[in-house]
Amino acid sequence: MAKFYGIGTGPGDSDLLTVKGQKVLNQVDCLYTPEPKKGGKSLALKIVTPYLKEDLEIKQRHFPMVNTLETKQAAWDAIAAEIIADVQQGKNVAFITLGDPMIYSTYAYLLERVQGEVETETVAGISSFTQIANSLQIPLVMDDESYAVLPATKDEALIKAALEMFSTVILMKVSVALPKILKLLREQDLLEQTILVSDASMETEEITVGIQELTEEAKLSYFSTMIVYKNRDF
Amino acid sequence: MAKFYGIGTGPGDSDLLTVKGQKVLNQVDCLYTPEPKKGGKSLALKIVTPYLKEDLEIKQRHFPMVNTLETKQAAWDAIAAEIIADVQQGKNVAFITLGDPMIYSTYAYLLERVQGEVETETVAGISSFTQIANSLQIPLVMDDESYAVLPATKDEALIKAALEMFSTVILMKVSVALPKILKLLREQDLLEQTILVSDASMETEEITVGIQELTEEAKLSYFSTMIVYKNRDF
Repeated sequence: MAKFYGIGTGPGDSDLLTVKGQKVLNQVDCLYTPEPKKGGKSLALKIVTPYLKEDLEIKQRHFPMVNTLETKQAAWDAIAAEIIADVQQGKNVAFITLGDPMIYSTYAYLLERVQGEVETETVAGISSFTQIANSLQIPLVMDDESYAVLPATKDEALIKAALEMFSTVILMKVSVALPKILKLLREQDLLEQTILVSDASMETEEITVGIQELTEEAKLSYFSTMIVYKNRDF
Repeated sequence: MAKFYGIGTGPGDSDLLTVKGQKVLNQVDCLYTPEPKKGGKSLALKIVTPYLKEDLEIKQRHFPMVNTLETKQAAWDAIAAEIIADVQQGKNVAFITLGDPMIYSTYAYLLERVQGEVETETVAGISSFTQIANSLQIPLVMDDESYAVLPATKDEALIKAALEMFSTVILMKVSVALPKILKLLREQDLLEQTILVSDASMETEEITVGIQELTEEAKLSYFSTMIVYKNRDF
């Protein structure tokens, strides 16, 4: 029976796709992928290109990155309806998403619309911050350590508490909340324990180990992540 | 130049290894793997078996699971010394570890001993709880949600705070702290929001969605994980 597959591509390197992702991509009839902002190929599509059949039907679709929920929901509804129709016509359909499909992915909104209508299967991927830790070879957690993952846009009180309570704290999207984050890290004397990664696994990747020199005015890429390693020296 | 590779095998399915893991395993001269408790093959070795060369040298080594740090350190020292000697003789050497090498893996202790002596590279893997979320198709985090990962053996106050603060909480090794965890989940009315997975991705895997029926006396497998999904209905 035809199926809808969500596939995590991993963070950027084609070799970090799973063998399962590779096999599924090789057998589907149609691939949906988010449309890149500036023309050309999306990063997700670039990652999986080595594994695609020549005659594969590729449907790039626009996912609006706006604050109005209605606009986004209308787009998700329309794309989900198209996917459901394709699968009901007997096509095996895949959707690719950066990193892991269950961690901060727009795929979740497609999935909840498609589930119940046609059969679905989701293939895990390596998340960008896991790859950062592996690439730096600095363990996220050992033994009885703990970690937390949260957007830097969260309440100051929550971020402060997370920094106090957990061995390792991963802050997503730090570019839009830099002054607040620097203040909190300074207060807890954690600037030297923090690694900043912009555009993880992309060609423009930049890694800063210890952010004592970083200022509130720094212009960071939208895809900037900090890993605060309270228990590590580097 | 010869190198030491740490490879995350993912949680259990050979297809969840990365393409990179597959390529590296296919080119190394020697593979170190943890010795299974009851003879036979370790789960990590089973996972990668489809990708191994016929003439690959496999060295199963014993990692003591005891509370005395000295005993464990002596074993890590000895295995690390053996690995360093192999690489210095020109062999490419891999070590395989379940899940991801940077998340609660004994590999971290080998890595810190081998780093600086020979060249090292670490290949990320899918962690067991990420695979649980993908297999259930229930997102760990969406939008501005947050999550925390911690051993159930941690202080009651920390676990309580984590359950209050984060959208999703992943509790590792719940078997050894079940009464405490059930009490905390009951107090916050989260039993119905909790998924219990024992032996994730193994043949003996058991999944319980909503743990209202679970009692303090239940005998759970050592490898039992709970995902507390505060924002999901299932």
